[in-house]
Amino acid sequence: MTFARDAWYCAAFATEIGDVPIARRILGEPIMLVRDTAGAVRAIGDRCPHRFAPLHLGTRDADTIECPYHGLKFDLGGACIFNPHGQGRIPAAARLPSYPVAERDGVIWLWPGDATLADEGEIPDLQLIDRGDRTPVSGYLAMSVDYRLVLDNLMDLSHAAYIHAGTLSPSRAKRESQYDSDDNSIRVHTQMRDVPTPSSQALYFAHAKGDYHSDIEWVFPGTLRQRLAMTDTGGEPDDGAVTRNAHLITPETDHSTHYFWIHTRNRRMDDTAIDERTRAIITNAFRTEDEPMIAACQDYMDGREFFSLQPLYLETDYAGTRCRRAIEKRIAGETRGVTPVEPRLERAG
Amino acid sequence: MTFARDAWYCAAFATEIGDVPIARRILGEPIMLVRDTAGAVRAIGDRCPHRFAPLHLGTRDADTIECPYHGLKFDLGGACIFNPHGQGRIPAAARLPSYPVAERDGVIWLWPGDATLADEGEIPDLQLIDRGDRTPVSGYLAMSVDYRLVLDNLMDLSHAAYIHAGTLSPSRAKRESQYDSDDNSIRVHTQMRDVPTPSSQALYFAHAKGDYHSDIEWVFPGTLRQRLAMTDTGGEPDDGAVTRNAHLITPETDHSTHYFWIHTRNRRMDDTAIDERTRAIITNAFRTEDEPMIAACQDYMDGREFFSLQPLYLETDYAGTRCRRAIEKRIAGETRGVTPVEPRLERAG
Amino acid sequence: MTFARDAWYCAAFATEIGDVPIARRILGEPIMLVRDTAGAVRAIGDRCPHRFAPLHLGTRDADTIECPYHGLKFDLGGACIFNPHGQGRIPAAARLPSYPVAERDGVIWLWPGDATLADEGEIPDLQLIDRGDRTPVSGYLAMSVDYRLVLDNLMDLSHAAYIHAGTLSPSRAKRESQYDSDDNSIRVHTQMRDVPTPSSQALYFAHAKGDYHSDIEWVFPGTLRQRLAMTDTGGEPDDGAVTRNAHLITPETDHSTHYFWIHTRNRRMDDTAIDERTRAIITNAFRTEDEPMIAACQDYMDGREFFSLQPLYLETDYAGTRCRRAIEKRIAGETRGVTPVEPRLERAG
Repeated sequence: MTFARDAWYCAAFATEIGDVPIARRILGEPIMLVRDTAGAVRAIGDRCPHRFAPLHLGTRDADTIECPYHGLKFDLGGACIFNPHGQGRIPAAARLPSYPVAERDGVIWLWPGDATLADEGEIPDLQLIDRGDRTPVSGYLAMSVDYRLVLDNLMDLSHAAYIHAGTLSPSRAKRESQYDSDDNSIRVHTQMRDVPTPSSQALYFAHAKGDYHSDIEWVFPGTLRQRLAMTDTGGEPDDGAVTRNAHLITPETDHSTHYFWIHTRNRRMDDTAIDERTRAIITNAFRTEDEPMIAACQDYMDGREFFSLQPLYLETDYAGTRCRRAIEKRIAGETRGVTPVEPRLERAG
Repeated sequence: MTFARDAWYCAAFATEIGDVPIARRILGEPIMLVRDTAGAVRAIGDRCPHRFAPLHLGTRDADTIECPYHGLKFDLGGACIFNPHGQGRIPAAARLPSYPVAERDGVIWLWPGDATLADEGEIPDLQLIDRGDRTPVSGYLAMSVDYRLVLDNLMDLSHAAYIHAGTLSPSRAKRESQYDSDDNSIRVHTQMRDVPTPSSQALYFAHAKGDYHSDIEWVFPGTLRQRLAMTDTGGEPDDGAVTRNAHLITPETDHSTHYFWIHTRNRRMDDTAIDERTRAIITNAFRTEDEPMIAACQDYMDGREFFSLQPLYLETDYAGTRCRRAIEKRIAGETRGVTPVEPRLERAG
Repeated sequence: MTFARDAWYCAAFATEIGDVPIARRILGEPIMLVRDTAGAVRAIGDRCPHRFAPLHLGTRDADTIECPYHGLKFDLGGACIFNPHGQGRIPAAARLPSYPVAERDGVIWLWPGDATLADEGEIPDLQLIDRGDRTPVSGYLAMSVDYRLVLDNLMDLSHAAYIHAGTLSPSRAKRESQYDSDDNSIRVHTQMRDVPTPSSQALYFAHAKGDYHSDIEWVFPGTLRQRLAMTDTGGEPDDGAVTRNAHLITPETDHSTHYFWIHTRNRRMDDTAIDERTRAIITNAFRTEDEPMIAACQDYMDGREFFSLQPLYLETDYAGTRCRRAIEKRIAGETRGVTPVEPRLERAG
């Protein structure tokens, strides 16, 4: 198995989901996301159990969706409630998977695994800077790569000094990093002393040089919380220009990944020109620097499993390697053999 | 095996085949179709047994075709009749498969299986309305889907009330269906009473409402004969505006399908404006409604076998399921292990 | 195995390689080619052993290359010489494969196999006509086909009378061929008597007809040396308009091929208009006649192994078949199991 299923993943930004159903693959499963008439987000399988048509293309009527192919109607909990054909009997197997969802921090969290294990208390707090009712800067990237290569990228930010030199990070500066971790999370603390201010921070930090503090924490399975602080040389991070960022990494399939990001800052918070400039810098970095590099690495892996290629282990790989091993351990602990995409339907009719 | 080979399939419309050879994959086999100097359609393998070049790109000279790569010449029965090289000896194995063909109802029927079993008496009569020397309305669709999903689509026309609502079919109307079948064919009779006239019938049926009668018959392996009649409410089908249609479904490969259709009507038969309008309505429905839906279903099957996904069985699936089971039974009965695309050539030279 | 590895292959034209590294797949392996500060061509693996990033995209500094992703530095012999992270320790496994290369006849020869076996004395002399300091006419074609189908094409030039009729070869003329061979090379001598001058030769041979002499020799694994002579009828080849050509066939992957060609002539050697015209004729023939035909043959092979399809054997297949068998024998003789693309790296760090 490639994925840990019993876990909360970001399925969408809250603003993406409205009255019109959308479809999204998450951990390989086709899922329909929509708001019910009470405004709550609901997530059910998008694949009709009859002939596998995409339900989100069907007709929505209050809290029901009618299959666009042959007209079976389902409620938003996944139960079939109407069969327009013949005697109209509804087979017992006429059910869609239904997924626990929760809306927090502007994010729709979804639990693709065993629903009886879903505990909303385990949804990570994104620890963003409170912007009141203003929307944070955020973005989305569809990546044609294995999600674990994206986690590797984020857990070893030393790459920023090379592929994001000058924009997101000082170039080739000396980094000091400390690590700590438990079974469920890994934290990397990095300092760079007296370095030139990168252009992303220069938008709201006025000095040409300073200390750069980066803290990033991975929380199982795909949440990364990042605090970046730029201070005067020798200053305390909390006194500086601080951004808090979330990187939410959700496998779409075993070879593609949803990357959601959110960025908040504590300086010049109302300046929408800085919002736009920040969005442009981050989007450009992720699309033209990270994504092509990760895709090139995956291409050179020639379809082989990561560890089978015996990657060179450097000190900076501590966090990424621990993250991979933690996910593997969780997958091994999920002992059930059947995934919810293929419920064992009894034959009916 | 995915295909029944010992059977007649539509290979082409008769009007497609002329003096210039064309190539078409049928049941995975590359086949060259051409008319001989007497005007008869001939079908031989398109793959030269020497180096596998496509023969249809070669030079035709009377009833021979010269391979475009190295110049071997074959007659239209598949025998090699000239080797331009060295001593000119023709290896015994220098043969192409030759396929029984017949021209009926404007269609080229081809038998891809054991030629000794081919009986032209088994070619189904398409039961079209006689148009004298006028060409019926017809069309072709290349579909990137398993042919059995296309048969499923046609054997359960309840889908028309959803994806073709108002154009080919009344919308969401109450249908009454009866079924009967034997080993080789399945018939579905459906009535909808006092329904709005769909736009396809409104071209030649003047009333806004009426009774809609649909009879469709599958004949092994891929022929569907359909009679649609629109009558005044309570009228007899034979007195109404009647169309007779053929849907000819031929596997191209195990994941793609040739769909040929022919449409005839008994009203305003000489009105070529109605011909054009009919062609547009049907083409639009098949291309923009059926094909994307069937392709979406196939996509959601993720490469898995249909029954392994335990599709929900509804009453309306009786005919489609029987059709799949009848084809499976025929395939199981074809005991020979070698397909004609790979004749066991002796080594020569 | 598809490839013989212990052999010299053309990796590039010498003019392609300069100070800026380029990447090329050869026998499936990603290789970086660059000139060192002394002007010598160097070839090392392009895949960083750390996270598999493409090194050629990195920063070159004198005779080092810095990985674009995390900054490891390598010398042009493949040794890691700098680790910018943590304590800076360089793991013993931090090495890239290094490939023997040699520059001869304007070609970069590369040995992808066991470097201890590489003997520059085995690099074939291309036997081109000396043009002094003038660049010969040459070209490159990226082909999406198995390299052995390209060798088949060249070892049986009888195809030229069909797909290159009138341009590169007289049309359908009577050919007389003789063959001789040893373990490492195969020669085909062909004469066509009193034939029309093809347009490629007409550029520098003034008579409308003459004798056409073709000698082509395959040298293991992918070098073809060809002498074409057009003479007055009954003349001696050495007195005629002679071209000497090299065709250098290098597998890129198991389904794609690098095709390098070089053309020299002994008539009107300084006429650059003839150079241009020759380049256009050859490029056109290879791109629009050979490549589509070979690709069509491969397509009709449906992914199956060549001999499993029991290709018809004609007299003209003698050389191509011997060539395939000679390569197979060499592959069988390469007993080591590990290819240099996957060195067994010890875990470090």
